[in-house]
Amino acid sequence: MDIISFSRTVNYYETDRMGIVHHSNYLRFFEEARVDWLAQLGMPYEVLERRGLMSPLLTSACAYHKPLTFREPFRVHITLTQYNGLRMTLAYRIERTTDNALCATGETSHCFVDAATFRPLRLQRAFPDAHAALLAAAAGEDE
Amino acid sequence: MDIISFSRTVNYYETDRMGIVHHSNYLRFFEEARVDWLAQLGMPYEVLERRGLMSPLLTSACAYHKPLTFREPFRVHITLTQYNGLRMTLAYRIERTTDNALCATGETSHCFVDAATFRPLRLQRAFPDAHAALLAAAAGEDE
Amino acid sequence: MDIISFSRTVNYYETDRMGIVHHSNYLRFFEEARVDWLAQLGMPYEVLERRGLMSPLLTSACAYHKPLTFREPFRVHITLTQYNGLRMTLAYRIERTTDNALCATGETSHCFVDAATFRPLRLQRAFPDAHAALLAAAAGEDE
Amino acid sequence: MDIISFSRTVNYYETDRMGIVHHSNYLRFFEEARVDWLAQLGMPYEVLERRGLMSPLLTSACAYHKPLTFREPFRVHITLTQYNGLRMTLAYRIERTTDNALCATGETSHCFVDAATFRPLRLQRAFPDAHAALLAAAAGEDE
Repeated sequence: MDIISFSRTVNYYETDRMGIVHHSNYLRFFEEARVDWLAQLGMPYEVLERRGLMSPLLTSACAYHKPLTFREPFRVHITLTQYNGLRMTLAYRIERTTDNALCATGETSHCFVDAATFRPLRLQRAFPDAHAALLAAAAGEDE
Repeated sequence: MDIISFSRTVNYYETDRMGIVHHSNYLRFFEEARVDWLAQLGMPYEVLERRGLMSPLLTSACAYHKPLTFREPFRVHITLTQYNGLRMTLAYRIERTTDNALCATGETSHCFVDAATFRPLRLQRAFPDAHAALLAAAAGEDE
Repeated sequence: MDIISFSRTVNYYETDRMGIVHHSNYLRFFEEARVDWLAQLGMPYEVLERRGLMSPLLTSACAYHKPLTFREPFRVHITLTQYNGLRMTLAYRIERTTDNALCATGETSHCFVDAATFRPLRLQRAFPDAHAALLAAAAGEDE
Repeated sequence: MDIISFSRTVNYYETDRMGIVHHSNYLRFFEEARVDWLAQLGMPYEVLERRGLMSPLLTSACAYHKPLTFREPFRVHITLTQYNGLRMTLAYRIERTTDNALCATGETSHCFVDAATFRPLRLQRAFPDAHAALLAAAAGEDE
């Protein structure tokens, strides 16, 4: 399955007094792209959440290569780099759309928890469809 | 009872590419000051929330007089301008601490709802202690 | 000229612990829509800014009618309600796209300033093309 | 020199619909603490900026151990782990003040650039006082 990269332009309120996107917002760009990616995989996050699944972050990392600024269009490319039923790791590349300049790279790792108890859960048992979709995505990356 | 005005300094991430505090953040300053004000009145918002009360906004308004910028200290003065058991209206003045310059004025109005159902509730019946504290605050403003 | 309403869906990071969009974010939605509206009128804000024009807020107001929540699609309809060469006032309606429910209404008023000096300027003299576009937009609203 | 850890409590608008602090905000907590830390070292960031120095991020990383939530007090402990005149790396520990629970750890690395040109600069030549303060801080960590 072909995933379409998430894309949009930078908002004014996302810039800071350096005139560029504040570094904390890249984690928000990653999140927007991740939600879009999950929906494309057939797992809209709002549906998973309603069914009792949450996927909090364990770690995040970002390398800032080139600053994005107001109104610049960018896209976020996501790769599932690790998935073992308990945790997943996603890698991100943010590129400026106008010239394909690499602006940021990053990574987030996630576990899966029961929304009511915040207890970790095995995706395979609790959400077999989500498990299958992530396995397929992981396999797709290997091709 | 004397309420101490909430005060702090501007953070870097609160500025935008104009070099000044982004206008949306003043609503966040109002909220920080409101939470502090409620705690000083003996009603810490986190306690009310745990007891099932939420106080969403009905309206907000802000007039921007003088921009605040990075690291400038400011204080927020709150006045309870209306309270009738179902709704309350608060007025805000934000002043730069260094020279008392008036930077922003604003207003928020709130109702009270049951946290579980989002249904409006009469504060007097459900939270008589909060009702009494707000009545006292309203009276204090009249003196 | 027909302006297309700005639309997108709510992001996770825009919600708060009430489970709904934090009230301060509506001002950010207004800004996103305003930037889009100016571009459709032929005045991309980033171009005006590069030419030395900034348009800070004088006032903002918002009434919260119905909460938006994560992943809900919404659109923002803008009306130019006042323009006199020195100031403009815009009115906003935010509707949930799925059922046209009215979620928020609001208003922002703006002056025009020289980006270098922060001094007010008359749009007609300094940016006659922007002045003409806003006059046309104001006339369009009257039809 | 003894540095006092930065501390404050969590704001409502910093939480998300999971009921806890949104993960992106930890980078903002790091920034607030970093600005405070620089001021305690005798290098208020706003003064450095006025003198033409900016210190953009090269990388950031955060591990989320225990969620913080609304009104919880926390402190941020900073260690300068690397400084070579061109770059610096800071490590962060965020602890909940009430029980010293470790909530997050992280790292940011920075270069130094001329605010006008965004060109990298050697701190020792351009800002010898800042260079000396960072060297002293680095030495202090070794003790």
